[in-house]
Amino acid sequence: MQKVVVLGAGMVGSAMAMDLSGAFHVTAVDMDMKRLDALAAGHPGIQIMRADLSHARTVSRISADFDLVIGAVPGFMGLETLRAVIESGTNVVDISFFPEDPLQLDALARRREVIAVVDCGVAPGMSNLILGHHCRRMKVDSFRCLVGGLPVRRTEPYQYKAPFSPIDVLEEYTRPARLVVDGRTVERPALSEPEPVEFAEVGTLVAFNTDGLRTLISTMDVPNMVEKTMRYPGHIEHMRLLRDTGFFSKEPVQVGEVSIRPLDLTARILFPIWTFGEGEEDITVMTVEVRGEEEGTPRSYRYSLFDRYDPETGTSSMARTTGYTCTAVARLVLGGSFGRHGVTPPERLCEEEGIFEAVLEDLKAHHIEYRLETDPA
Amino acid sequence: MQKVVVLGAGMVGSAMAMDLSGAFHVTAVDMDMKRLDALAAGHPGIQIMRADLSHARTVSRISADFDLVIGAVPGFMGLETLRAVIESGTNVVDISFFPEDPLQLDALARRREVIAVVDCGVAPGMSNLILGHHCRRMKVDSFRCLVGGLPVRRTEPYQYKAPFSPIDVLEEYTRPARLVVDGRTVERPALSEPEPVEFAEVGTLVAFNTDGLRTLISTMDVPNMVEKTMRYPGHIEHMRLLRDTGFFSKEPVQVGEVSIRPLDLTARILFPIWTFGEGEEDITVMTVEVRGEEEGTPRSYRYSLFDRYDPETGTSSMARTTGYTCTAVARLVLGGSFGRHGVTPPERLCEEEGIFEAVLEDLKAHHIEYRLETDPA
Repeated sequence: MQKVVVLGAGMVGSAMAMDLSGAFHVTAVDMDMKRLDALAAGHPGIQIMRADLSHARTVSRISADFDLVIGAVPGFMGLETLRAVIESGTNVVDISFFPEDPLQLDALARRREVIAVVDCGVAPGMSNLILGHHCRRMKVDSFRCLVGGLPVRRTEPYQYKAPFSPIDVLEEYTRPARLVVDGRTVERPALSEPEPVEFAEVGTLVAFNTDGLRTLISTMDVPNMVEKTMRYPGHIEHMRLLRDTGFFSKEPVQVGEVSIRPLDLTARILFPIWTFGEGEEDITVMTVEVRGEEEGTPRSYRYSLFDRYDPETGTSSMARTTGYTCTAVARLVLGGSFGRHGVTPPERLCEEEGIFEAVLEDLKAHHIEYRLETDPA
Repeated sequence: MQKVVVLGAGMVGSAMAMDLSGAFHVTAVDMDMKRLDALAAGHPGIQIMRADLSHARTVSRISADFDLVIGAVPGFMGLETLRAVIESGTNVVDISFFPEDPLQLDALARRREVIAVVDCGVAPGMSNLILGHHCRRMKVDSFRCLVGGLPVRRTEPYQYKAPFSPIDVLEEYTRPARLVVDGRTVERPALSEPEPVEFAEVGTLVAFNTDGLRTLISTMDVPNMVEKTMRYPGHIEHMRLLRDTGFFSKEPVQVGEVSIRPLDLTARILFPIWTFGEGEEDITVMTVEVRGEEEGTPRSYRYSLFDRYDPETGTSSMARTTGYTCTAVARLVLGGSFGRHGVTPPERLCEEEGIFEAVLEDLKAHHIEYRLETDPA
């Protein structure tokens, strides 16, 4: 049986360890023994290992013993962890979503003959896969991805809970969003161009610019690309107020005798307000639209996702939609269906036939369904 | 010529020094030489003196040389400054609006045979005077005061500027408001019970509970009393968001290696946003309603004030409406029209006949007019 190690036993890492367990020998690694114990308690098939993954040598040493690594560490340590995994010569599928460009590790991965699939979640992840799939079949003129992870219960004033640290969400609300318009990369302020979006299962949501295109900007020759984040109506106004007042600033401010970055205090204050309660349900909503010309005629494809928290296993929708995309790709890599050495963002997975369909099939088995509408049908 | 000293040469203190100069020998005292120089430059009749008024002995020593003291120091040092003035044996009219109960100095003032009029601004101040006036003529059942100091230009998101430190405004938005309802003092959260108010000169404003009744709660036997603050529509929602999120909290929060009170950072961040620009115009709006039974019939009185920045002298409306009430009362004390020893809040000034009318007359000479409507007329 092949051996898989999951680096990081957070919410998504744990869900992936459980998903892969049975078919593979799975080991979960984390610094936090409580998380590991919680995971091992319900799943005796999963090995647990306590280790400090902020040490590259530790990461390389552990990775070398496995057939595949799943990278699920926090974003700020993602790049160095991935580099250490690649150095060890082990294939890896990663969802740490680190802010740096992952393609900077491409040469290293090719030299070490390592398959390294990055950004392999829902968005980035499935959104990239969808675009990559259609780009092989048509001349794509426009790509538009709207995505949001939301709590079911809408509690005022924010109507939002963060499945990860609020500081990462606030970064997303601050960093200028890069879009591609008429073939040129342009910047828009974060939280800009809000628009209402009707979503069958939840009603009206508001989509606004966030910097989510990532690798697509450099890998895809598509003249119009935009990614927007969706939240419940009312959320963005509050975020703009806090941002415009200066509460998201990273410039230290002198207050009496201490110096502090307003962003750090804000993240600290929002943490308890934005933390999901035990068993609190979340949903994932996404729409991906691809438009262009196929076999001489205009054509558009629209994929919609609506996914819910799984009360039976207590798995969040965020962990399901992100983690099960990653494990689907992991199974393909382990099964030899994808063999390209180097760093591969999801839009390039489709360079091998059947990958897209296999991932959709695997997700369907997990009751994650991407509904497709085409026009003309 | 009688000698008057103004303690504190801030915006209101300076306006009062100018107003009293000519008829009296006026000396202005402050720590800030720049303020004093600016005041002296335009008004050679005003003496200036640099001194640290946070030392009680300094305050007593200076006060002893004058016929009347005008107290216009920041609220946090108001009580101790007033105590030191009273100790010196000099009469005083005060607008430092300190948070503590001024009546705690009543026994001392009576012992020292000092006339000490406190809270002598617009609200508290004129609002108290109006209530005191009518209480001598009718059985008052209800008193309602709505008051606001606002910038003319409504700049999003806050549509507000503070004529004093934002931290004092934020305190007002945090401290529970005390109201009198059916003869009982009750507490309501600050920023609660917002209601639209139509104001002829500006349109719709929103009035909400703030803790402004102060001495009236203990001095007046009126079964229903409420004070509300008015702001432009939209302001209160932002303030509630910040408060409910925790940005007004005085509980220190640990952020990394530093400990900080969120309120201090918030005040620091809001300071530049809420500061009036040079020559930026403000207005003061107020409505005071007194209802009850007069000579056996139901009767109501409604006073309205709308005042503007004075572009000729560059005097803010806040300084005009607050400061000129104080100087009107100061003239009455200097002229011997009010002679009661002890601490006197404005509602008790009317225990001597003619005071209310004289103050209204003096304000009218400054183009500050309280329009009166009565019902039945």
